[in-house]
This record gives sequence, C-alpha cells and structure tokens, in this order.
Amino acid sequence: MTTPSDPLALLRGALGERVDTTPAALHAARADKSGHAAAGVPLAVVHAHTVEDVQQTLRIASATGTPVVTRGAGTGLAGAANAGDGEIALSMRGMDRILEVRPDDLLAVVEPGILNADLNASLAEHGLWWAPDPASRAISTVGGNIATGAGGLLCAKYGVVRDAVLGVDIVLADGRLLHLGHRTVKGVTGLDLTSLVIGSEGTLGVVVGATLKLRRLVPGEVCTVAATFPDVRTAAEASAAVTASGVQPAIMELMDAASLAAVHALLSLPAPTPGASQLTIQTDGPAAGVEAEAIADVLRATGGTVAVSHDRDDGERLLAIRRSMHPAMETLGTALIEDVSVPRSALPAMFDEIARVEREHGVVIPTVAHAGDGNLHPNFIFDAEPDEFGVVEAPDHIWAAADDLFRAALRLGGTLTGEHGVGVLKRRWLADELGDDQWELQQRITRAFDPQGILNPGKVFAR
Amino acid sequence: MTTPSDPLALLRGALGERVDTTPAALHAARADKSGHAAAGVPLAVVHAHTVEDVQQTLRIASATGTPVVTRGAGTGLAGAANAGDGEIALSMRGMDRILEVRPDDLLAVVEPGILNADLNASLAEHGLWWAPDPASRAISTVGGNIATGAGGLLCAKYGVVRDAVLGVDIVLADGRLLHLGHRTVKGVTGLDLTSLVIGSEGTLGVVVGATLKLRRLVPGEVCTVAATFPDVRTAAEASAAVTASGVQPAIMELMDAASLAAVHALLSLPAPTPGASQLTIQTDGPAAGVEAEAIADVLRATGGTVAVSHDRDDGERLLAIRRSMHPAMETLGTALIEDVSVPRSALPAMFDEIARVEREHGVVIPTVAHAGDGNLHPNFIFDAEPDEFGVVEAPDHIWAAADDLFRAALRLGGTLTGEHGVGVLKRRWLADELGDDQWELQQRITRAFDPQGILNPGKVFAR
Repeated sequence: MTTPSDPLALLRGALGERVDTTPAALHAARADKSGHAAAGVPLAVVHAHTVEDVQQTLRIASATGTPVVTRGAGTGLAGAANAGDGEIALSMRGMDRILEVRPDDLLAVVEPGILNADLNASLAEHGLWWAPDPASRAISTVGGNIATGAGGLLCAKYGVVRDAVLGVDIVLADGRLLHLGHRTVKGVTGLDLTSLVIGSEGTLGVVVGATLKLRRLVPGEVCTVAATFPDVRTAAEASAAVTASGVQPAIMELMDAASLAAVHALLSLPAPTPGASQLTIQTDGPAAGVEAEAIADVLRATGGTVAVSHDRDDGERLLAIRRSMHPAMETLGTALIEDVSVPRSALPAMFDEIARVEREHGVVIPTVAHAGDGNLHPNFIFDAEPDEFGVVEAPDHIWAAADDLFRAALRLGGTLTGEHGVGVLKRRWLADELGDDQWELQQRITRAFDPQGILNPGKVFAR
Repeated sequence: MTTPSDPLALLRGALGERVDTTPAALHAARADKSGHAAAGVPLAVVHAHTVEDVQQTLRIASATGTPVVTRGAGTGLAGAANAGDGEIALSMRGMDRILEVRPDDLLAVVEPGILNADLNASLAEHGLWWAPDPASRAISTVGGNIATGAGGLLCAKYGVVRDAVLGVDIVLADGRLLHLGHRTVKGVTGLDLTSLVIGSEGTLGVVVGATLKLRRLVPGEVCTVAATFPDVRTAAEASAAVTASGVQPAIMELMDAASLAAVHALLSLPAPTPGASQLTIQTDGPAAGVEAEAIADVLRATGGTVAVSHDRDDGERLLAIRRSMHPAMETLGTALIEDVSVPRSALPAMFDEIARVEREHGVVIPTVAHAGDGNLHPNFIFDAEPDEFGVVEAPDHIWAAADDLFRAALRLGGTLTGEHGVGVLKRRWLADELGDDQWELQQRITRAFDPQGILNPGKVFAR
C-alpha cells in the first residue's frame, strides 16, 4: 500500500509508462562518462516527453522532498548527472525536437534532448551552424552542453556555449515554467538569468527549451598547419607565439609526446620521434590561406617542423590524430580526464607543472590542450577493476596528483575547469577557487531558485 | 551633535575630504542624461579613490541602513545612477587606473572609473581595443558600461559588454570584496556571477575592478556603403536583406526621414528628398572590399541609391551624419530617447508600429536604429521647461505613446531595452516582459547579494 507521500507511486499515477524502474535504466542513470558513479540506484528514471511531464515530476518532487537529477545523454565528465539512492533521474533525452529555425534572425528554438551533431546536421541544410563543438558533440545533447557551459575546439574564434544562447525556458523546483532571455541580439531587461543557468549543472532548474544564437557556415577554404617540436614546452611556447602574433586560428590543438605516441600506436602509424610534441592548427574564412602561411612562419621561427595543407580532407586526416586521443588513452589503462584552463601565456609553465606532478607523484599524465584558449586535458592513467556496473573509481594517489595539478593551475591564474564543470569530481576544490564568501553567495543564489534544495543536491556546492 | 547612527558624520570620520556635500555636487548627482532626476538631493557624494574607500562607505551604509547609488560619469539614459533624498551617491569616477595590459593574453585589468575612450586610446598603443562602443564612449566609464550591459554600433559583429568581460571585482553591500570570474578564455567553475553583475545597474554590488577581454585592432581597409531609400520601411527591409545575405557588416545604421532632415539642417547640408531614409554600413577586416560590394548589390536590389567608399576618412564623414543625431534632436525640442530591440526580421514591422504610434498619439518620433542587431532608438520629441536643476520630465502623453511603443516591441518578440537598461524609466514595464514569477525570482536574487536592500533601491525592480 502506498501513501500520498510515496514519490514513486505519485510519479506512476501522473506519468504512467514514462516512469521507468527497470534495473538496466536505474543502473545506467548512476553514472556518466566521468568514471564516478552515485551510491545506490535512483528511485526511478522519468523519460520526459513534454514540458508538462517535467512540471509534474518537479511538483511531485517538491511535494515529497525528493531530489531530482536531470540527465541528457549521460556523456558528462564531472559526475553532475549521476543519480543515486532515493533520487529521481529525470531524462530529457526524449525531448529532442527542433521547434523553429530562423535563418533571417540567425536563431533556432530547440528542445534540450537533441544531440549537438543532429542539430548541426539539420542546421547545415539552412547554411547555418551552432558553434559550440565539444569533443562529445556526436553523443552529447544541447541541454547537457548548456548545463555544463560546454566548450570545444573552436572556442577561441567562435566562442563557448555562453556566447551562443539567447534564452532558455526552465522549470523551477516547484514546477513553475519561466522564459529567460530574449530573441534579440541585444537585451538588458533585468538580470541576465540565462547566463546564470548556463553552466549551473542542474542546480537551478530544468532546461526544457533553448533559443540558440546561430552562425552562417563559414565560406572559403580550410587550411591545416601541422608542426612537430622537439618537446612539449617548445610546442606550448609556439602556440603562445601564434596567439601573440594576432592571427586567430579556428582550431589550435596541442598533443604531448605520450599522447602522440599512444595515438600513433593505436592507428598503426610510424612511431613519432621520442619526446616530440605536435600542434595541429586550422584556419578558415576568407583569409584562411594567408593566415595559415603567417602561422607557419611563426611556428618555423619557434623551432617547428611545419607542413601546410590547403586540402579540407587532408586536414581532416591530420585532425583525426587528435580526435583519436580518447580511444588511445583506453589502450593505456583507465583515464581520469582533467580540464584545467590557464591564461594562454601560462601554457608553457603549466606543462612544466604537469611534468613536475608526473615526477613527484610517479604517475603518467598524457596531455592534450585546446592551446588557442589555454584549456588543458591532462589524462591521469591508472589501473583499476571496474565494479559490477562497469564503473571505475580513481584511487587516492591519482586524486593526490590531481589535487597538486589543480592548485598549480590556480597559482598560474587559471581555473579548475574550462569546460567539463564541477559536478562531484571537483566540488572539494570549488571553495579554493571561489573563496568562502563567493561560495556561500552562490549557494544563497541556488536557494532563491530552489528553496528546498531538491535540485541535484550534493553536486557542485557540497563540500 | 551627531550620534553613531548619523551616516554623514560616520562617512566624514572615515573618509574625510572625499565626502562632498557642496550644493553643486549634490545637485549634479540627482540626474543622469535620461531627463529624469531623483526627488530631493543626496546626503553626500563620496568620491572613492580606493577599494577600501568603497568598502568603508558600504560598511557605514549597512550599519546605518542608508541607501547607496553608485555613479560613473552620469551619462546613463535610464536614471539608474540618480541619487536622491537620504541616499549616498558613491562616485567611482576617481578610480580610473589601468592596472594591467596583457597583449599575449588579450586582457586588461582596469578600475571602473576610466572613460571608455581613454582606455581605448591607451590600448591602441598596444595594437588592441575593447570592443564595446556605446555612442557615449567619449564620456562614459567602463564601470558604467558594465553596470548597464552597454551595447553600441559594432555589436552584431564584435559583441556587447557581456561578451567582453572575463571577471569583475565587486564590493557587496556589507563591504566584503569578491573576485568574480577568471582570467582564462574558458571557465565554468560555479555559477557565472560575472554575467549576472553585468547589466545589474548597481543593485548587486559596486564594481571596483574589471578584467576585460580585448581584441587586436582589425587590420585592413574600412569600406563604407551609404544608401538612400524612398521610405523607412524599404530601408528596414534592405537592412534585413543584408543580414539575411550572410555578409556581416561591422556597422549598419539606419536613419529615418525625420532624423535625416534634422541632421541635414543642423549641418547645413542640402535638404534630403522628403521621406527619404538612409542606411550607412561599414565593413572591415581582410574581406572588407568584397563584402562592401556584396552589400551594395543587396541594397540596389532592394531599391536603394548606393555609393561605396574605400576611403576611411570619407567613411568617417558619412558616419558623422549618424553621429550628429543627438545634437540634431536638441534643435527640435526635448527628446525622450528610447531603446527597444526586436529580432532583425521584425525591423520593418517595428517601423510600421512607430508610424502608427506617431499617428495615434499625435507625437513626432524621429528614429535611428542599429539595424544590424535590431536595436532602435525612437526619440519622442516634446516641449517642456527645465526645473531649477535643468532637468526636464517627459509629460504624460509622451509616456502614453512610449507605453504603446514598448508593448508593440514585446508583441514582435522584442525587448524593452537593448542597451540603456531599466533604471527608473522602464521599471513599470519590467514585469510585463519578465512575467511576475521571473520578476520575483530576480528580486530574490538581489536579496542574496544585498539582504537589507540598500543598493540602488527603487531602481529596476520597484513597481
């Protein structure tokens, strides 16, 4: 027998078969791609198909004091979407429609569950694109990109998610629907709650719709410059020199020697020179060719061995080496993928710190960087057995090394996370970066949205 | 005799000669450039020179429950910086230093009181600029630009203030100093309070420092396209056609017939064809020439008489007509300068609405528009006598016409204010745009920053 305060019974009564309690669904909702999993399994997975589904779920959650964890495709790297014991996992993946595309106003209105790549395939038919391009774009949702404030490869030239969203519709913890932002290029009516929701990792409300700022597909050729350097510090200095030269690449990716060696082995390419590091740079737009040559000159002056290609397919082949990073890491062991960001001029110093952490902690940390915006992904490699659900927890000595690396990034004027978010992985360092006063202020702001604290409790702000 | 709760005595004790109670200073602090003035005069003007001055002022204000109105150069157009009876006017104009310029990281750290134009003159020596370019740039401060979330002429291509600030230091109502944001291109650690402070019009805290995102000066020529059209609707359709063509101008300004006639009279130029409207468009960067010719083709196809100039000085002479708008309006009477923004495709319909409001309310509304981003400045012209302080209040029939125009903009998917802010001028319409639920949520957020409500009370959120 159920009482009116039994959230599962209430959900079933209101949402019927959209409430999923199969063991497979419950277990899948425990983890994202961070390597972390929640303790226990959630009460239920609710597969929302409409805004009203979301509102009903949140009204029941509020009435019963039940925590709600919103999920997209579960591809996050910080554990923010992991749902555990006693929680409702609210899946937005089924709300995946494109509601409107306006080429004349360069905007689209979409539901949050659509995959980034699926959206862009549709937009391409209109000669348009949505610029945020996280490496996960083929498998991650627009709603998840918004929840994390995602970045990607093209950010220095084309911006991050925060630059590409005009408005969001959110459902508050009590079930009320709010329309935040606007459809105009400019708008300063009241506080900018759209920007506040972007990157809030499910703590302020559930995004049920988004008005996206689009760009036209960039005309002209794409040129690719590939350069190898004797060591990673020289490659980092070269990337800083490109930034300082004033030419703006579309993409500038750096791979250190360990990353490069692992990818070459995976792809059965000839082994690279030991210690060699690589920069792969693309230029686009009307001046792509001139810019590629200017960049090549900078790279040669900083000691690089340089090749320039004006062929788009050739460029894709060169970038494929960078894109094979994650599968290559899997051949080495389990990887804790980190995400610090530093001012671009500090990239060489940050690579020195990574080398120091490797030495002092006896760990291997292959690292790639979105060098054009100072965002590094150090991969902490370790061996561990997965649990019954296939989830692997990083051991203490890996976290000790990561802690050392985070603090080094902060000392260099950097930030804990450039694009993955805080989730559960970095919550213990959050107050170190924000300071206690700002940490408390941010918590008070979440309480203005969610007085009961039922939205993604234990994420981001828990210490 | 003073008691410990006398805020003026406490300010004098703590800040000495930085506390200004001369009648001229007190009266000047009552008004900005909006045409609105506060009732009564403030207690004092505090000329802050250091962060500590700001902290002391706010500690005294908190201890005594005294409202604080933060001011820059007083050039705002919505009345947000107007200080009245019983309030402390906190002037940031004296904190005007550039603390750091980093060409390699494309950032600068500045105090808020520096004028936008003075900052850009210094940055030009490094080959850099800060893109936000409100028409007031010669006389407005960076802190004021941040407080209002200012726009300008170059926004569609180069962004607004929100796109150009990496972090802000703010002093809270209780005197605590917080560092918000980061020095990196990417950063998603916690909630984005920097974006929340931008455009908050003095309601959340006092900005005492800002880390600005810079651009390199754009190389290459600047081309100017001037086109006249038989009427304003055709000009608006032509600007929408330029946007839809995919070419991105740096500047695209539209002047209606009344604006054009007034400026021509002011500058002693031959009178324009009656009814004629004008578009002035600039392109820049490596493809400026090609883009200007493509735009000229679009304009000719939509019925424009077009002239293209590749000479930078010639272009400045053409733009000077647009820049003479404000003095030209002063020759017609007193102007209430409005600031609605609509999706770009709705520009022609918005001009139809302005014509309707002119007819139905019997008022003259010369209008210019930043047509590239759908932001219109209708100037409601009226005759009125200034009060003893030179301030003129708009009469009721002008507000009735403005009310009609605001509601038309909202119906077209637009917003009340594109770049001037809410201040006192638009607070009565704020809930119409936000909805009551969001209006209340925004107020709760201000209370998380300022529990006593001493920061700019009566602005933005008062109904």
